[in-house]
Amino acid sequence: MNKGMFITFEGGDGSGKSTQIEILSGALEATGFDVLTTREPGGTAISEAVRNILLDPDNGEMSPVTEAMLYGAARAQLVHQVIKPALENGMIVICDRFLDSSIAYQGYGRQLGDIVEKINEPAIDECMPEITFFMNLDPEVASGRIGERGEDKDRIESESEEFHRRVAKGYEELEKKYPDRIVPIDASETVDKISVKIIETVMTRIYQR
Amino acid sequence: MNKGMFITFEGGDGSGKSTQIEILSGALEATGFDVLTTREPGGTAISEAVRNILLDPDNGEMSPVTEAMLYGAARAQLVHQVIKPALENGMIVICDRFLDSSIAYQGYGRQLGDIVEKINEPAIDECMPEITFFMNLDPEVASGRIGERGEDKDRIESESEEFHRRVAKGYEELEKKYPDRIVPIDASETVDKISVKIIETVMTRIYQR
Repeated sequence: MNKGMFITFEGGDGSGKSTQIEILSGALEATGFDVLTTREPGGTAISEAVRNILLDPDNGEMSPVTEAMLYGAARAQLVHQVIKPALENGMIVICDRFLDSSIAYQGYGRQLGDIVEKINEPAIDECMPEITFFMNLDPEVASGRIGERGEDKDRIESESEEFHRRVAKGYEELEKKYPDRIVPIDASETVDKISVKIIETVMTRIYQR
Repeated sequence: MNKGMFITFEGGDGSGKSTQIEILSGALEATGFDVLTTREPGGTAISEAVRNILLDPDNGEMSPVTEAMLYGAARAQLVHQVIKPALENGMIVICDRFLDSSIAYQGYGRQLGDIVEKINEPAIDECMPEITFFMNLDPEVASGRIGERGEDKDRIESESEEFHRRVAKGYEELEKKYPDRIVPIDASETVDKISVKIIETVMTRIYQR
């Protein structure tokens, strides 16, 4: 492999993204690949500082445009400092959330529409994922799983049901728009069944190159 | 006055912006106007948190696009939460730095060019200043004044001379592009002489309405 591969995971909180990322990166490393896993918003000191502002429940007055721009800023730094250099070094980069999250949450959830893509264009710097696994899970089941973890909900998780319905609609639209890139996963299946499908998809793509 | 008036001050650090803003707002208040003064980046809790990230000398790895987007995010929140509501209430809003700073520092200084205006379009939300005083001062004199204050330089102030020359060039270009809005001020003049010119300009504009 001369060039790295960029893989992202999308879907609501509680849909099992972190578990599957851990399994996938372990399997790829065991097969001899160099893997870098990261997350959004975050993944660099600057982006993590931005993350703290974004998720702080005290920042309820944040305007939708501010929110979209802060996610964009955190992403710009992550692309510049982590993702691009790793891909140039031939690594497989797995990122928990990326641009699709901004489109679903700010574009659809906050109803900002196309502004979100415009804001993100310089942040992405033409660095788009090759495969995106979309962990599709009924919002109520996901909410139950978050509750089981016993964590307090952050500013975004605390949003209304109506907001989360719009986010789900956003992911549906993205899935229709990018059928070659986005691989839908039924996140209500068992962890093992899901991980087999994900690993197979990635391996097939790698050996097709 | 039915509608507020939006005034901004631009120019390098040490050019006397804060002093003149204080004098102008005092004069306007004494004349019976409701005045709100604010600054960029900052002016809201969220924007001040973003300011801390931007000016922290430890954040040397920040990419130019990240920087432009963080300034944009801080601006979006200030416009949404402070500037627009005050203008709608008929107040005179005086802001220390605004969009022109982003164009001069990120567009010219960081050489991002037109991306900066594109990033800022949703942040500004059509809220542009009616008058902008550009405090023009030789960078060396300004640097000396900052030194006298005994403050440590922040991340932007610590930039190279070459960077600050490009910023100065940016302000020059803006002055040529917006001659009706931007009022150049020779910041090497005495405080009194400058303040008379500024107050006269504002009063004339108010009574012309």
